[in-house]
Amino acid sequence: MTEISAGSRTLDVMAAIRGRIAGRALAPGDRLPSIRRFAATMGVSPSTVVEAYDRLAAEGLIRAQRGSGFYVASSAQPPLKLSAETPKARAVDPFWVSRQALDAGEAVLKPGCGWLPSDWMPDAALRRAIRSLARSDSDFLAYYGSTRGSPALRRLLLGRLTEDGIAAGPDHLMLTNTGTQALDLICRFLLRQGDTVLVDDPCYFNFQALLKAHQVSVVGVPYSTSGPDVAAFEALLAAARPRLYITNSAIHNPTGATLSPQVAHRLLNAAGAIDMAIVEDEIVADFEPEPSTRLAALDGLSRVIRIGSYSKTLSASARCGYIAARPDWIEGLVDLQIATNFGGPNPISAEIIAHMLSGGGYRKHMEELRRRLVRVRRETVERLQRLGIEPWLLPRGGFNLWCRLPEGLDSALVAQAAVAEGVVLAPGNVFSISQSAAGFMRFNVAHMQDPRVYEVLARAMRHAA
Amino acid sequence: MTEISAGSRTLDVMAAIRGRIAGRALAPGDRLPSIRRFAATMGVSPSTVVEAYDRLAAEGLIRAQRGSGFYVASSAQPPLKLSAETPKARAVDPFWVSRQALDAGEAVLKPGCGWLPSDWMPDAALRRAIRSLARSDSDFLAYYGSTRGSPALRRLLLGRLTEDGIAAGPDHLMLTNTGTQALDLICRFLLRQGDTVLVDDPCYFNFQALLKAHQVSVVGVPYSTSGPDVAAFEALLAAARPRLYITNSAIHNPTGATLSPQVAHRLLNAAGAIDMAIVEDEIVADFEPEPSTRLAALDGLSRVIRIGSYSKTLSASARCGYIAARPDWIEGLVDLQIATNFGGPNPISAEIIAHMLSGGGYRKHMEELRRRLVRVRRETVERLQRLGIEPWLLPRGGFNLWCRLPEGLDSALVAQAAVAEGVVLAPGNVFSISQSAAGFMRFNVAHMQDPRVYEVLARAMRHAA
Repeated sequence: MTEISAGSRTLDVMAAIRGRIAGRALAPGDRLPSIRRFAATMGVSPSTVVEAYDRLAAEGLIRAQRGSGFYVASSAQPPLKLSAETPKARAVDPFWVSRQALDAGEAVLKPGCGWLPSDWMPDAALRRAIRSLARSDSDFLAYYGSTRGSPALRRLLLGRLTEDGIAAGPDHLMLTNTGTQALDLICRFLLRQGDTVLVDDPCYFNFQALLKAHQVSVVGVPYSTSGPDVAAFEALLAAARPRLYITNSAIHNPTGATLSPQVAHRLLNAAGAIDMAIVEDEIVADFEPEPSTRLAALDGLSRVIRIGSYSKTLSASARCGYIAARPDWIEGLVDLQIATNFGGPNPISAEIIAHMLSGGGYRKHMEELRRRLVRVRRETVERLQRLGIEPWLLPRGGFNLWCRLPEGLDSALVAQAAVAEGVVLAPGNVFSISQSAAGFMRFNVAHMQDPRVYEVLARAMRHAA
Repeated sequence: MTEISAGSRTLDVMAAIRGRIAGRALAPGDRLPSIRRFAATMGVSPSTVVEAYDRLAAEGLIRAQRGSGFYVASSAQPPLKLSAETPKARAVDPFWVSRQALDAGEAVLKPGCGWLPSDWMPDAALRRAIRSLARSDSDFLAYYGSTRGSPALRRLLLGRLTEDGIAAGPDHLMLTNTGTQALDLICRFLLRQGDTVLVDDPCYFNFQALLKAHQVSVVGVPYSTSGPDVAAFEALLAAARPRLYITNSAIHNPTGATLSPQVAHRLLNAAGAIDMAIVEDEIVADFEPEPSTRLAALDGLSRVIRIGSYSKTLSASARCGYIAARPDWIEGLVDLQIATNFGGPNPISAEIIAHMLSGGGYRKHMEELRRRLVRVRRETVERLQRLGIEPWLLPRGGFNLWCRLPEGLDSALVAQAAVAEGVVLAPGNVFSISQSAAGFMRFNVAHMQDPRVYEVLARAMRHAA
């Protein structure tokens, strides 16, 4: 969890100063009202104003000048810096893994990445889909496509929702460019600056990076082997009244855990009591041997929003995401996608994915992936155990393995040592809001077959010890 | 221009109440402090509190209950509604044209849309590019691609920047999913809630829709036949101190005007004086017979950011945008794109565009488009003049024609009557921040060859008279 929020009087003073800066009543370089004077203006104690000024200074909005008071910073509203450093020099934060893994050369091994090796992907089917695209209608190839995205892919997705027991019509669905963009649109639609959002601890690291861009407070609920810790979840909802909870129930990232029906039921009741929305990210759900409990299915798309994509199962190059939600929310989200992206999602990608899903090949492809993953998961567990690395849980499916390193090792140091030798790892704390997972590492079992991974890992562990 | 902002004391009171609601010190349904009491708390007059409460009530954050005071609204922070209505019923606002044009069936005529008919687009070259895509490397087809997007397309774009006299290196450039997403990322990076942004009046309507999503104040500068009115521009910069100016210099949308060198020079000096950033949207620049003055070229990508895409010239289906800017800004924008979209832009689209640009075909294709446009523009002007519709300016290039309707006609009424007959028009006020363009209409000359357009237009004008 992030720190407890300041008292309401301190927040009032901070808000008043922010308001004056936003309204240009205080310009960069201007001196702030004296502590004594502003305390009188606001009807609060001088110590409240001191606390407020200190907090604003920590945020960089104002700066203290010794012996002279507080001044509006020369760039009082600097460009949003999600991270201050260049990728090479930067700290091991949620961007570290993304950038290292996405921009790595071919020679780099990537057991820290969140996707399958290219030779696991349905290459021939993808090429067939692309060739079929070259025979499309000229209008399709020239135009933006409809604002909700490819009708063919939406029809297929509606069928999937029905299979999952969700009675959804065309008004419940829209496509997006990517699964992450789906979440981003939802956050823009539902959240306001200063809102609180609940995530799992640990959770997919990019949730944190995304929420930082929304300038919201983020709190984390400890994740157990059957879903979030329900007592902690209920207490957090009462205390922090989050507006939104973001999770992925089926094969949780990074832990590989599965949500139990009892936990799902209690989560939904707790969410209902404070009218909190829930995003359920289904991106790796098809890796499950059989479907587990889903919040969206229990809830029937009332307060739960389902998002997903086929980047992990079909192609990350032909990217396409989707959102299934209440029709009135979808309507607002479509507007927001027009405003921020113009038109709907990439028509060409959606058509390729629709082509690949419409044959019978997808089911067979997924069965084959699951079979291969069972085998490499078993091998990986054995090879990691020889290094003293133990899985926290044996997942029912998927490619992630959340592991505990030998006592006392900091996974960020291990990851930094490994990247110097051309191996990108995913250290525990990039997934943890509370920064309590330094002793953990997430391994992608599909990228763990090269013996060099274990050699570099062993050396990096010795280096970090 | 939007309304003058409230006094700083009123803003303080509003900020204090907002802070209490955000901090949950005031929950939905709670009664607000009485006017007299809160006036004393804030050290302001009761009338200031009354004004602040009224403004918050207008925003929907609180509601007045007759004889009883003010209460926090039951959904104090409702989801952002960019527009309250469904596309069919909605008012003629900036979304109206987008949705009508994007979601229209094939039978609908679209002289209001912002793209060329599909039979003007390079269909054969596009199909060749797609077939070549089907022969790509397997890694390319499976993976996310690099965070800055296709190296092949970036190399081509750097060549273009050099041709335009802009000395840019790889650090100055990134690709995005669309031109609109490019602008959206820049706004998220540079702007904070409450900032002021300057646009042209009239301007591309989606700039307004996009800026609404950013919750910033928008002011408009009157656009003349040689660029924005410089005196008004300088006065607005001094008065409103906007953080950003968004424009498109080459073939301005909707007017078709061209920025003169003298105006460009003075705009840049004025922007420098208040450290304002400028986005120059180049999306239709290649429709110019010869290149006109560009802010980015004069400025050398210091405070000017160039954005663009090939949706208007090659394909809107294989969409890809770009941003050229200062390296430190690009670095932050790449992070933001990872956080909100994961990874870089769509690799498949970028590769298709790169393939189409790398041959000699693009230049010939653009020459042919320009020739055709000269012819249909002349014809369209003659046919519109017979209806009493006069072009405001004869543009040097492009497909837009900004026209004045006969005296007294409201173009929104004309557009509503026309859409009922299956013709989507673009009425003037969707482009105008000041809502001063009701007598204007933007026509896409490439969609004006069907005689039914003129028949429906004539009837709609009689209907609206």
